[in-house]
Amino acid sequence: MTLRLAITAGEPAGIGPDLCVQLAQQPQSAQLIVIADPQLLEERARQLDLPLTIRLFDTSVAPQAADAGELWVEPVYLAHAAEAGKLDSANSAYVLETLRVAAQGCLDQRWAGIVTAPVHKGIINDAGVAFSGHTEYFRDYAGVEEVVMMLATRELRVALVTTHLPLRDVADAITPDRLTRVTRILHHDLQEFFGLAQPRILVAGLNPHAGENGHLGDEEIRIIEPTLELLRQEGMNLVGPLPADTLYTPKHLANADATLAMYHDQGLPVLKYHGFGRAANITLGLPFIRTSVDHGTALDLAGTGKADGGSLQTAIEVAIDMASRRRGQTPTEPSPT
Amino acid sequence: MTLRLAITAGEPAGIGPDLCVQLAQQPQSAQLIVIADPQLLEERARQLDLPLTIRLFDTSVAPQAADAGELWVEPVYLAHAAEAGKLDSANSAYVLETLRVAAQGCLDQRWAGIVTAPVHKGIINDAGVAFSGHTEYFRDYAGVEEVVMMLATRELRVALVTTHLPLRDVADAITPDRLTRVTRILHHDLQEFFGLAQPRILVAGLNPHAGENGHLGDEEIRIIEPTLELLRQEGMNLVGPLPADTLYTPKHLANADATLAMYHDQGLPVLKYHGFGRAANITLGLPFIRTSVDHGTALDLAGTGKADGGSLQTAIEVAIDMASRRRGQTPTEPSPT
Repeated sequence: MTLRLAITAGEPAGIGPDLCVQLAQQPQSAQLIVIADPQLLEERARQLDLPLTIRLFDTSVAPQAADAGELWVEPVYLAHAAEAGKLDSANSAYVLETLRVAAQGCLDQRWAGIVTAPVHKGIINDAGVAFSGHTEYFRDYAGVEEVVMMLATRELRVALVTTHLPLRDVADAITPDRLTRVTRILHHDLQEFFGLAQPRILVAGLNPHAGENGHLGDEEIRIIEPTLELLRQEGMNLVGPLPADTLYTPKHLANADATLAMYHDQGLPVLKYHGFGRAANITLGLPFIRTSVDHGTALDLAGTGKADGGSLQTAIEVAIDMASRRRGQTPTEPSPT
Repeated sequence: MTLRLAITAGEPAGIGPDLCVQLAQQPQSAQLIVIADPQLLEERARQLDLPLTIRLFDTSVAPQAADAGELWVEPVYLAHAAEAGKLDSANSAYVLETLRVAAQGCLDQRWAGIVTAPVHKGIINDAGVAFSGHTEYFRDYAGVEEVVMMLATRELRVALVTTHLPLRDVADAITPDRLTRVTRILHHDLQEFFGLAQPRILVAGLNPHAGENGHLGDEEIRIIEPTLELLRQEGMNLVGPLPADTLYTPKHLANADATLAMYHDQGLPVLKYHGFGRAANITLGLPFIRTSVDHGTALDLAGTGKADGGSLQTAIEVAIDMASRRRGQTPTEPSPT
């Protein structure tokens, strides 16, 4: 059965539309439905001198991947015609509507997940809309309290307990409650979306040498160890807390399904060193699959043909992989409810 | 000219003596002078069933590497015969004396540097001696105020602004003064010991995304950027502050001679992921070369033949490399002063 995935084209003045047009040049293994203004895509294709035939998405037709040169599109319409490289706050409502359509389509089981091209937070805020990013948008739209950021290649998965916090605020943010919620989401989603019946998760300590028995910080003893012990009693296979520079060595990683770092720069430098350009950003904790490119709108490259589609391709492949491993039947048609 | 290096055999009950005996089984490219009790080495060789001929070090003989099965030894004598695996605080003075002899030999230019096998801090403290590690010992013996820890393979060098601090203390430890002293030492020693006329150093930010223009912490703006700017005016080639997960990607590393991480788990997980078992721990800021294994005394492996000499071999190779690239003439004979 051919999978269906939504691709949001993101900021219309950025490289998102370019990447969607580039994507259409090769045959794909899933039905990718770009949520964007069809005219925007056609104009960008002309600018890039690439062939493009738009096929409007129709749920009544069985899922089928587009041929080379074609793109399935679920239309959302711009307020103003977009110009490559020029932000226009009049189109912010359009950008948000593409996200809403993508999310609602997941909740309605019209498609199995969402892959997002970059948006521009600043221009959305300039339009008077409080918006702090895709992740928070989908969290709120789906009505869940917490989501978890994970970056992954095919070989290495790094989930984070805390994400975009100043370093001085990290230690206080590592609470039993947060660690419990994040670890449960990670464990659950590895089962739900990655085909892992009993995932083995390596958990880093907060401090260097995982605190060295309290000599270099006591959060491992006070918080991390007792929390992991309680989670093990729920049946989770958790190893740690391990020193981060021990955890990320081949011997330990060989037997792990995922790693959980306490903060951004403890885990992501290794992931980016290992898999730069091959990593997808995955949001766990949602009732649907969501992956993302790991770059920005690159306004200066829009319309030039110089945008690199590698990250979008990776994010799509990861989403396809997650959808095909998802527990139970992959939803590709509207559910009866 | 054959280089001379001192090897301290470390804790006599640990694997240090084993590693020295194992080292003697292959020919070496430098004159390695083991500072230890000759009888201890002979006993451990018998226990391991390995051949060993001790040659007492003599400065009046021109430097020459030992043949296979031989070991040059500068003798320091145990208080008690040592038993593999059994710590004995009566021998702590012996351990410290091997370090003193090694350091004094460097200051006297009898050898070009020191490679250290592991000591056991606890048993030295049990003997009533305040001792917090090799690094601090050599710093104090050499009379310098500050040293810098750097881990390195042949391809990647990671120096640290702070080392063994609880994570919650890191932000306050990043001061203009400390960053200035550490960066100057790194820059100087890359010139002095690594043959780099104008080293290019990539400097990480403290916060995720290097603070993202102050949105995720302001230490980059308040402290790191102005400090680096002043250091550039001294002629240093410093890039940054960069987000750590951007810094440690192939594109950035390709043009760098070294990287400077703000704290332990920002830099070392990448280094260990990249070069586990091939990395040496180097102390910069000393008036001599000092490298180290990156493992402990492994008391349970002493005398069993199961100790892995890879890390000691790497530490020796790095020290040889540093000595051979050292600015000016490599000192191998006593200086006239």
